Amino acid sequence: MSINYQFILDTIGDEVQPLLSRGKVAAYIPQLSTVPLQQFGMAVYCLDGRVYTTGHAYEKFSLQSVTKLFALALAFAREGDAIWRRVGREPSGNPFNSLSQLEHERGIPRNPFINAGALVITDILAERYVQSDIALLQFVRTLAAEPALDFDRAVAASERETAHRNYAIAHLMKDFGNLHSAVDTVIDSYCRQCAITMTCVELAKAASFLAQHGTVPWNGKKILDASSAKRLNALMLTCGTYDAAGDFAYRVGLPAKSGVGGGIVAVVPGDLAVAVWSPGLDATGNSLAGTMALERFTTLTTRSIF
Amino acid sequence: MSINYQFILDTIGDEVQPLLSRGKVAAYIPQLSTVPLQQFGMAVYCLDGRVYTTGHAYEKFSLQSVTKLFALALAFAREGDAIWRRVGREPSGNPFNSLSQLEHERGIPRNPFINAGALVITDILAERYVQSDIALLQFVRTLAAEPALDFDRAVAASERETAHRNYAIAHLMKDFGNLHSAVDTVIDSYCRQCAITMTCVELAKAASFLAQHGTVPWNGKKILDASSAKRLNALMLTCGTYDAAGDFAYRVGLPAKSGVGGGIVAVVPGDLAVAVWSPGLDATGNSLAGTMALERFTTLTTRSIF
Amino acid sequence: MSINYQFILDTIGDEVQPLLSRGKVAAYIPQLSTVPLQQFGMAVYCLDGRVYTTGHAYEKFSLQSVTKLFALALAFAREGDAIWRRVGREPSGNPFNSLSQLEHERGIPRNPFINAGALVITDILAERYVQSDIALLQFVRTLAAEPALDFDRAVAASERETAHRNYAIAHLMKDFGNLHSAVDTVIDSYCRQCAITMTCVELAKAASFLAQHGTVPWNGKKILDASSAKRLNALMLTCGTYDAAGDFAYRVGLPAKSGVGGGIVAVVPGDLAVAVWSPGLDATGNSLAGTMALERFTTLTTRSIF
Amino acid sequence: MSINYQFILDTIGDEVQPLLSRGKVAAYIPQLSTVPLQQFGMAVYCLDGRVYTTGHAYEKFSLQSVTKLFALALAFAREGDAIWRRVGREPSGNPFNSLSQLEHERGIPRNPFINAGALVITDILAERYVQSDIALLQFVRTLAAEPALDFDRAVAASERETAHRNYAIAHLMKDFGNLHSAVDTVIDSYCRQCAITMTCVELAKAASFLAQHGTVPWNGKKILDASSAKRLNALMLTCGTYDAAGDFAYRVGLPAKSGVGGGIVAVVPGDLAVAVWSPGLDATGNSLAGTMALERFTTLTTRSIF
Repeated sequence: MSINYQFILDTIGDEVQPLLSRGKVAAYIPQLSTVPLQQFGMAVYCLDGRVYTTGHAYEKFSLQSVTKLFALALAFAREGDAIWRRVGREPSGNPFNSLSQLEHERGIPRNPFINAGALVITDILAERYVQSDIALLQFVRTLAAEPALDFDRAVAASERETAHRNYAIAHLMKDFGNLHSAVDTVIDSYCRQCAITMTCVELAKAASFLAQHGTVPWNGKKILDASSAKRLNALMLTCGTYDAAGDFAYRVGLPAKSGVGGGIVAVVPGDLAVAVWSPGLDATGNSLAGTMALERFTTLTTRSIF
Repeated sequence: MSINYQFILDTIGDEVQPLLSRGKVAAYIPQLSTVPLQQFGMAVYCLDGRVYTTGHAYEKFSLQSVTKLFALALAFAREGDAIWRRVGREPSGNPFNSLSQLEHERGIPRNPFINAGALVITDILAERYVQSDIALLQFVRTLAAEPALDFDRAVAASERETAHRNYAIAHLMKDFGNLHSAVDTVIDSYCRQCAITMTCVELAKAASFLAQHGTVPWNGKKILDASSAKRLNALMLTCGTYDAAGDFAYRVGLPAKSGVGGGIVAVVPGDLAVAVWSPGLDATGNSLAGTMALERFTTLTTRSIF
Repeated sequence: MSINYQFILDTIGDEVQPLLSRGKVAAYIPQLSTVPLQQFGMAVYCLDGRVYTTGHAYEKFSLQSVTKLFALALAFAREGDAIWRRVGREPSGNPFNSLSQLEHERGIPRNPFINAGALVITDILAERYVQSDIALLQFVRTLAAEPALDFDRAVAASERETAHRNYAIAHLMKDFGNLHSAVDTVIDSYCRQCAITMTCVELAKAASFLAQHGTVPWNGKKILDASSAKRLNALMLTCGTYDAAGDFAYRVGLPAKSGVGGGIVAVVPGDLAVAVWSPGLDATGNSLAGTMALERFTTLTTRSIF
Repeated sequence: MSINYQFILDTIGDEVQPLLSRGKVAAYIPQLSTVPLQQFGMAVYCLDGRVYTTGHAYEKFSLQSVTKLFALALAFAREGDAIWRRVGREPSGNPFNSLSQLEHERGIPRNPFINAGALVITDILAERYVQSDIALLQFVRTLAAEPALDFDRAVAASERETAHRNYAIAHLMKDFGNLHSAVDTVIDSYCRQCAITMTCVELAKAASFLAQHGTVPWNGKKILDASSAKRLNALMLTCGTYDAAGDFAYRVGLPAKSGVGGGIVAVVPGDLAVAVWSPGLDATGNSLAGTMALERFTTLTTRSIF
């Protein structure tokens, strides 16, 4: 009962076409708002090295919040459980950029995948590395075996200019003593981090270590121990898709991390990593066609974690 | 590499002993507050019918919120996706009995496992059955193959007398038009439902259909289709352990539903269901020793969904 | 420079005519929703006994929340500062029937003029009087020298049937231990209290003791000492007009208490009490024409407290 | 029945001595935290020009939030009702530096006396004046007839260094489009504004125009028209003493504005302005001895607005 991944991807590629015009491109970052809606790519990276693709799977897109996954993996690999003194592990039940909960909970973000939590992770990296954004870029380059991966400087600049909400979050955490570097340093690094661009194929490959208990499948390098990799997957499932994590788990049933650039990366533990990209977002900020593609993927492969 | 479940359970039974005195018995229901702390039971029900136990696995305890799982399964089996018009599927990020979020979101509870959501599910059952609490009891009796299962009337009465918070929640939903039956009818039925008592062995068996794609393993009866069973497991993972679902997923990595009686039932899809009971609760309202026991269980068996 | 009150009232009576159709009758109490919009009455009761009126000043209307003023005065006269152990004195910054703040502040209402606070006052009266609603009615009859004042039983019944929000509030306070009588007892008494009907002339007379340092001007009877009367006026100013107290103070500049029946009573300390009634409400639940009439009154008489 | 103000002030000066050690100096601004607790001053400025003092009435102190009153008066005098498009007039029901309500109400602060509202007023002044802090200083110098009034540069610098919460507020409003100047410009100006120092005598004189319908009593210069002055007094009463405005109105019964430097200025319309200073604060951030002194002042003079 081997699965014909190529047939399934092709089917999904056909099915999502009518959805491409329904989403909305992220408007709040000027540089992202110009990306054409009618694009869809998907790539599967199996642990045995096989790769399957459909659509614009070799097109670069802006990772945005998907980078929070790699930043967390790097910080977790370096600092271990010490990071949980500064950020929680619970779904927020609020929009990804909310200040109310952060204020009520005295500057400790709910989890590392909302903006506040990601800023704390950036701050943790900034304490360890001279240039935390470069360190993260190197980490992602290694994971994807793509030394040419880079930031999109125009997107980073655009993002910084409209980062008032993130500045507000950072200053609030500073006020509570939960940001150690200067606010400007953290925001700069965070904006560049978000502006890393990748293709679906590169992204699926870069995340594949999470499907193999923390070890990079194509070179055997251990990024995280098995227990830590599982825990990171658990966090993706409960917190990885903004305030729609419950619905996403219900529909898709895979640990995943999404970004407002329209990308989503998901993991089938023991089997594969899968990345989708389509820039049109639904009301919760997740790729509309991308979410549907992943829902169809787990239905057609009968591979969910549940 | 078959797993020696009995050895693992015995190990866990030893390990949790120092924890038994650390938790606190639920104080707000007078009848529950008298249960002695120093008790711990655990039972594994494998899909092939084997049963493993340790400690007080044949002791009856009050299911409390664990019944929300069975009520949801019954309502979902009968009404399908129609139930999602009246209750959401997202983690709440708030205590299980909070009114603020319910008010802000105009009477639509975040998920079926917080009290507000469970009251809506009870209301849905009350619209379909003359006596919804009896219908639920019969459903659980069938799932566990235990026709003698029953409510603890003293606990139900005790619960009703201190149900002011639940009355407040029900009236608020009534005000928003999201409760169709009379408030008293729903609260009565809900309090009886919560007072069902079971042993760990009975509970693990009753939940085993969720490990086998919705089909009762010992008689082949289909309770839910495979897709629905997976979805219910996903809901348990994201919402099943109150406001600690993220932490529980991180530590244990299994879909689970807990109750303030100290019981927790969890599912390893494709393999088994496991129930633990220990009345001492942690600050989030989950069994302290029970959570640790399940964390050890997934570590020692290396069976988590991630 | 004596003031020609009759001329001023007549002017206002003319000016407000175009506003009468703009407000909305309170819809949530069925019996109130049938009151015709095109009505306006106003009465001034001077401390020397002179009375001035315009429009429907002798028409009965439902006092609703205006009764919270008399209930507070009665409780304050009987219990003194002890009442502040159970209810606060701060503006709420939230709608009059909100539960969120009450939950956050552990069942202690912000002030006696939001519903939660009024229910506590009713509870305090219920502890002292066998029939607290009758006691309050007698108190108001004495203040207005109108022994025939009565409840409108149809309105009270209508109110009780739609009192789900108030039930929710009462049960939440019961849960926090801040309601001593049975919830049904308090809600019954509260609904009858709200259903007292009066005319503008009667209302202005009944409130006149607050303009004369707590002493009834026409019989010299001391209801409250001077300091307590001033304090009650201060509470009216900061909390008397729902979540619009700041705007009301800004525009009108008088201590006042409003009700969703469209009545407002205000006090010019040392001079007079004034009552208006017009059933059309603005978005904050205050009489639209009534608020404007009082704003014009303080402008034309140059009598505000500021 | 003329009032012996000197005797009353002397009495109050004696009475408050035991209270001086009970408050706490504002700790969050390093420069303020060094001010000795055991200080108390009070000054009355009557509209006829007489001045009465007790204690350290000629000692300079940091005005802090008291300056919000003068900034509002200046903006209101220049822009009129246009300012209400950007800031509300309601009590906040939340601490003075809260972000939750501001987020929920989409960047429109509740009133001009909480930090968010004051930052908007500063922004309004920054749009009209090249150097808004200098413009405000000149305005206060004119009101007090004290051309030597100045900022305390050390306090301003200290304030700026710990202004993370205010930066968060400003960036959040910027995100909502309710801050037109650069965040740094507004915060700089605001920190300097807060650092103006005055004595009680100077402060009472500077506020006396609010007791005389908007006209400076000693030179007849009209700052605001009578209606606007009344409205400003109304705002002070409902919003001038942080989240304790209800309690302050209840106890003192005068329009007032307080600051964390320990100063409070209050107005008896038609009669006088009164300023107190004592650096020890109560839990709500108002001067503990200062509030009690004003409560005794209205009791002993029987001059409240109610």
